[in-house]
Amino acid sequence: MEAIKKMNNKFLVLLTAIVMMAVSCSKSGENSPKNAASDPLPSWNEGQAKKAIIDFVTKTAKDSSAGFIPVADRIACFDNDGTLWSEQPVYFQLAFAIDRIKAMAPQHPEWKAKQPFKALLAGDMKTVMAGGEKAIVEIMKATHSGITTEEFEKSVSDWMATATHPKTGKHYNEMIYQPMVELLNYLRANGYKTFIVSGGGVDFIRPWAEQAYGIPPYQVIGSSGKVKYDVLDGKPVLTKLPELNFFDDKEGKPVGIYQYVGKRPVFAAGNSDGDYAMLQWTSMASGYPRFGMIVHHTDGEREWTYDRASPIGKLEKGLDDAAKYNWLIIDMKTDWKVVYPK
Amino acid sequence: MEAIKKMNNKFLVLLTAIVMMAVSCSKSGENSPKNAASDPLPSWNEGQAKKAIIDFVTKTAKDSSAGFIPVADRIACFDNDGTLWSEQPVYFQLAFAIDRIKAMAPQHPEWKAKQPFKALLAGDMKTVMAGGEKAIVEIMKATHSGITTEEFEKSVSDWMATATHPKTGKHYNEMIYQPMVELLNYLRANGYKTFIVSGGGVDFIRPWAEQAYGIPPYQVIGSSGKVKYDVLDGKPVLTKLPELNFFDDKEGKPVGIYQYVGKRPVFAAGNSDGDYAMLQWTSMASGYPRFGMIVHHTDGEREWTYDRASPIGKLEKGLDDAAKYNWLIIDMKTDWKVVYPK
Repeated sequence: MEAIKKMNNKFLVLLTAIVMMAVSCSKSGENSPKNAASDPLPSWNEGQAKKAIIDFVTKTAKDSSAGFIPVADRIACFDNDGTLWSEQPVYFQLAFAIDRIKAMAPQHPEWKAKQPFKALLAGDMKTVMAGGEKAIVEIMKATHSGITTEEFEKSVSDWMATATHPKTGKHYNEMIYQPMVELLNYLRANGYKTFIVSGGGVDFIRPWAEQAYGIPPYQVIGSSGKVKYDVLDGKPVLTKLPELNFFDDKEGKPVGIYQYVGKRPVFAAGNSDGDYAMLQWTSMASGYPRFGMIVHHTDGEREWTYDRASPIGKLEKGLDDAAKYNWLIIDMKTDWKVVYPK
Repeated sequence: MEAIKKMNNKFLVLLTAIVMMAVSCSKSGENSPKNAASDPLPSWNEGQAKKAIIDFVTKTAKDSSAGFIPVADRIACFDNDGTLWSEQPVYFQLAFAIDRIKAMAPQHPEWKAKQPFKALLAGDMKTVMAGGEKAIVEIMKATHSGITTEEFEKSVSDWMATATHPKTGKHYNEMIYQPMVELLNYLRANGYKTFIVSGGGVDFIRPWAEQAYGIPPYQVIGSSGKVKYDVLDGKPVLTKLPELNFFDDKEGKPVGIYQYVGKRPVFAAGNSDGDYAMLQWTSMASGYPRFGMIVHHTDGEREWTYDRASPIGKLEKGLDDAAKYNWLIIDMKTDWKVVYPK
């Protein structure tokens, strides 16, 4: 029972941490910096932050430099929610789950009399949230399991192609950060392998990450549920189960990087205390130079302003210890020329 | 209790399935086919098998071909034990574990009076094996946990650099199959991403796979134990725990490919019934052409002869169903010009 409770607990955090991506694509062509030769980070304002990034990349990629890192060890890990795309007012994966409940409702007449589905379908999110963990776990189980992996992938892609964000009206995958897309491209152009290391669900991210960020499925690490292999009617299928497989947040991030990447990163980027352990593990190593950065949400006009007091993307320890670990704090408002791709 | 029993059970199979790699390297330069332009597979004899491989790769990589596969979907998965290197008379990872017990013995005086360690240290493998599952689990726990990931990696590398195989006298990582190394190179030269999908321990394979096969750590999937993140004396460390994290064999192979690669392969290679589900999942898909192959151990002189009756690398279902699924059976004796790198 304790184990099940624990699992549910984790499922909750998973779901809570389950914010992400949006519509079917932001064409990768658009994401390539036009004049990368002259300025690899055109959407970044000139300043300390941009200079620190370029100095690090230049130093580590130049053969004759004291800070040179061999290509095989140029591993860069990025959180997703709040680091590569927005995460307000709710994690985008939660928005997906809610929309999915609505779409699935006709096949589930029993939901009309069953919480949290009844409240959710009536648009009464207050009652849903009052249901706490249990309600969220119910929503996650109903939307993220009992389905083949291929069906789930299609449901994510379909949602990304149609759903829009309540504040911006954009498709969710149009709310990726253009400056970060340029940073990913810049790192790759300099021999870095770029990985996503997200607390959100890995199979919610993979269907669109390649187009949005240029990151293939096998370089996306995230939380995951268990999956089962069967041959049904002569056809092999993988079915998603309502059981947590791996929870990729907080101390789970260095663990996930070890289990999936098998190498210690030299570059890590996050935005919340969920990324603290990953940043710490990346920074506190000898040998190569290391780079840790934190995206600080300071732009209430173009995006959102939040840090220490936010239930989503809470950033407290990271701010307190940034100087100690030499982490670069990105001030979204002053460091970024634009937020989203045009 | 049932769960723990199950776990131990899996640990056993893990260990049993835990055969692998050897000394510190077989220089990757040697593995590159010298005249790839004229013959990409010089260590393969001319014949049906070689022709089938070249036909498939040519067809799927040529833009104008009806069987063309876009680069992003050119995913090839290889079993390791018995497919990329030898696995007799015991899985090489078991040989590693046994040597490690011997090396650790001075720090464990209590082992002199405790089975299976007592028997193992006396060279009495009969008594060790009579201990069954429990004995194997004890050996695995003692050698594969309670150690940081960095210390474990070093112990693998050190062993590879020094240990030699009882029959061939070679370092274990010199017992990789030269024809398969050429096949890996050939696939990569044609835009394929190559992955290892092994029942053996992932952190036993990663330290030497890049040098031996050209496969980086993040493209190695295998069985794994849980790992814990801590900051000890101001230093972040990952410690290996005596708990199974993932068992990557049989039905676990398609599951592992889904969880780690996130794409369905178009090419898969194995040698035992532990690879059956992976081959089946790869072959039974619509859309692209698919290729499944099985290395059949038919060469008792240069390697070993075994299949249906072997406790290690048992191959029965694979032989029975090869025709049905159109899997290519590689006859090691007639299809391979050489077995190991020179």
